[in-house]
Amino acid sequence: MNKKSKLSTDNYKGVRDFYPEDHRIQEYMFSRMRKVVKDFGYEEYNASPLEYTEIYKAKSGEEIAKEQTYTFKDKGDRTISLRPEMTPTAARMIAKRNRELIFPVRWYSISNIFRYESPQKGRLREHYQLNADIFGGVPEKADLEMIDLTHRLMRNFGAKTTDFTIRMNDRRILGSLYDIHQIDEDDRPSVSKLLDKKNKISEKELIKEMTRYLDKERVKLFLETISTPTKTLEDVGQEHPAVKHIVSIIEELSVVGITNIIFDPTLVRGFDYYTGFVFEVFDTDPDNSRSIFGGGRYDTLISLFCDREIPAVGFGLGDVRLLEFLKSHSLLPLNETEVKVMICHMNEHPYARSSSVANVFRDNNIPTEVDISGKKIKDQISKASKKNIPFIVVIGEDEKMKVKHLDSKEEREMTIEDAIEWITETLITEGSWQEK
Amino acid sequence: MNKKSKLSTDNYKGVRDFYPEDHRIQEYMFSRMRKVVKDFGYEEYNASPLEYTEIYKAKSGEEIAKEQTYTFKDKGDRTISLRPEMTPTAARMIAKRNRELIFPVRWYSISNIFRYESPQKGRLREHYQLNADIFGGVPEKADLEMIDLTHRLMRNFGAKTTDFTIRMNDRRILGSLYDIHQIDEDDRPSVSKLLDKKNKISEKELIKEMTRYLDKERVKLFLETISTPTKTLEDVGQEHPAVKHIVSIIEELSVVGITNIIFDPTLVRGFDYYTGFVFEVFDTDPDNSRSIFGGGRYDTLISLFCDREIPAVGFGLGDVRLLEFLKSHSLLPLNETEVKVMICHMNEHPYARSSSVANVFRDNNIPTEVDISGKKIKDQISKASKKNIPFIVVIGEDEKMKVKHLDSKEEREMTIEDAIEWITETLITEGSWQEK
Repeated sequence: MNKKSKLSTDNYKGVRDFYPEDHRIQEYMFSRMRKVVKDFGYEEYNASPLEYTEIYKAKSGEEIAKEQTYTFKDKGDRTISLRPEMTPTAARMIAKRNRELIFPVRWYSISNIFRYESPQKGRLREHYQLNADIFGGVPEKADLEMIDLTHRLMRNFGAKTTDFTIRMNDRRILGSLYDIHQIDEDDRPSVSKLLDKKNKISEKELIKEMTRYLDKERVKLFLETISTPTKTLEDVGQEHPAVKHIVSIIEELSVVGITNIIFDPTLVRGFDYYTGFVFEVFDTDPDNSRSIFGGGRYDTLISLFCDREIPAVGFGLGDVRLLEFLKSHSLLPLNETEVKVMICHMNEHPYARSSSVANVFRDNNIPTEVDISGKKIKDQISKASKKNIPFIVVIGEDEKMKVKHLDSKEEREMTIEDAIEWITETLITEGSWQEK
Repeated sequence: MNKKSKLSTDNYKGVRDFYPEDHRIQEYMFSRMRKVVKDFGYEEYNASPLEYTEIYKAKSGEEIAKEQTYTFKDKGDRTISLRPEMTPTAARMIAKRNRELIFPVRWYSISNIFRYESPQKGRLREHYQLNADIFGGVPEKADLEMIDLTHRLMRNFGAKTTDFTIRMNDRRILGSLYDIHQIDEDDRPSVSKLLDKKNKISEKELIKEMTRYLDKERVKLFLETISTPTKTLEDVGQEHPAVKHIVSIIEELSVVGITNIIFDPTLVRGFDYYTGFVFEVFDTDPDNSRSIFGGGRYDTLISLFCDREIPAVGFGLGDVRLLEFLKSHSLLPLNETEVKVMICHMNEHPYARSSSVANVFRDNNIPTEVDISGKKIKDQISKASKKNIPFIVVIGEDEKMKVKHLDSKEEREMTIEDAIEWITETLITEGSWQEK
């Protein structure tokens, strides 16, 4: 086969290959996420990325459902999609077992989602997301837990409370403002969409776009009100249940020391299905003041699937933005191989001997690779060193073996029992011992 | 919205929803897989399930590439597929970095793969697979490690050596038999396919199908030879390198006590890209003597992607057949919730108080749920009991709290420090403490 006819090694446009060094970083993020949500009592669920398309049509938002989803017909003429988000799947599954589940239900999932982004934008077509949701329960308390959980997640990644801010709003406050400023019912989705992208466009552009729905004078007044929390509160009134809710969240959380939260009346969030409380976590770094992730309350989505209203709140934390945040705040751990021992050989050796020794190390929780390169001992050691494997073990003729710690160059001749002890102690001292 | 217009709660035909109790079983299987392959030095990689279709056309086998794959065009008119198997992706990724990687490379992945099975067969359209592969190294030693690893995987799931058999063959032995029995070059793929499904059809049917390629007398002779390892060895000869290789594997592994392996000249395996050594693990239960999983050597696949031949061997262990095996041999652990404490409330309570207490438990590695049901204390406790949460904690007015162990009905009033100690000790005694 000549060079021209080789198959391309490119991955599909907009998706990622995870080589072991990339996978370790992702696994670090996922394991931290798992630890925190499990500690809060969330249980993991999952589903296929293939779903009937109809579950997205209702509430995911026009743009996502129509333009940004991988949708195709299967051979049975069913219209199916690669999930663009996880919430409709969770809602479907909750609805299916709504008579058996014990509410409130706390669920989480770490799963890949697909968006048909245009490649020009340089955005990814597949990314991973932690979704954590509470179905049922007292909504005010569930919303509080969401912020508590969000805060704890960020802190668990090593973020300081000054590194991020949690902005909160309630769709009902926005609705009340629309009433007061007489924004036409039909125009409201478009105005919300505009507010949602207000940080990505200039003020001038925002005003210009807004004049499609209000005259210029009133646009100014509306934008001034919504950009000033106190003015919004004046307009909407302290007695509005959504206002009382936001104020009480801020008060209750300040008691447990969570104070990096603010009320932001302009906060919208993209999904059409949100019905009340919404929140979003922002990086406080002025050079990178982007949204990291967010969520909100969706009390009517599940009733699309069953004859029962089940209030729900949740968020989706994506791996790409989280990684950016962790990188820019230097919060990533060292990216090291997990193999601790390479078994090398002076001469041609029977597999049985190396395998027996390796399996004893493995039984003692020491990940161990056997050299099968067929190369000379010098090359075997240099290979282990290049791969940053901390110890090499050279098996000889008798029961004793040579163990070498590559960093310190210390070499000892010892029995396998002593070798296990020395290796384990050294790894514990170096902080790279992994309990299993 | 009336009942008729509700969205269906069905998942897409042929795929599965994983409710928490299903997910826990899967996670049990995956964590065992991870532990074993990591101990052997395999590193995890991953990639998107979306791949350009062309990577499957070359070698996955006609049936899989053409009829059983989800293939569609994206909006940029690219033909893409949902991966029907992981090996071509791994080969592509290895080829892409073949100049940088340090060979031999040991990789594993636990990922979902998609097959367009016809729904009548009742087979799944998506399942998960552990793929473990060695790229490079001395082929004989790599093949040996594959069997060693396979054996250790099965043993780690609690299988006794009498519960399974590893059958082995070499495609080159088959090729030699085809030569000897004068089976036409063009007919060989079809004959191999027949042998591959010989356990699923009757002997009569097999003979009938075979007569399309050989006259009846020779079919009988061929089938007799191939069904009798000693006859095959006589025909092919002890000096054939593939025969020597199989014999040496059996000898070397018997030294480390692995004896449930046999040479089976009829073993083919489905993929076209296998070039030599192949193996398959079978359940020894006479009522369920199915293949559980298998793998083989593919030394030419990577050279489809780059100007270099990199020998490779690997296997794919699917979750569905493994689960069947574990179930039928009673090897699954108890399926319990991981939440250990439910915080309940006598009266209306501030969130801050429950959150502070819960977070102290969480800091001490005790997954803790806060009751947010808004129900009476009696209902809160009965809910915790239904969910099999072992402890409830009732927060009162002062620093003391009531802790109740639901199984023993023992109740104590204590400080949070004492509660943590009691709960931890009880969980350790009950064997349900999880180190983090």
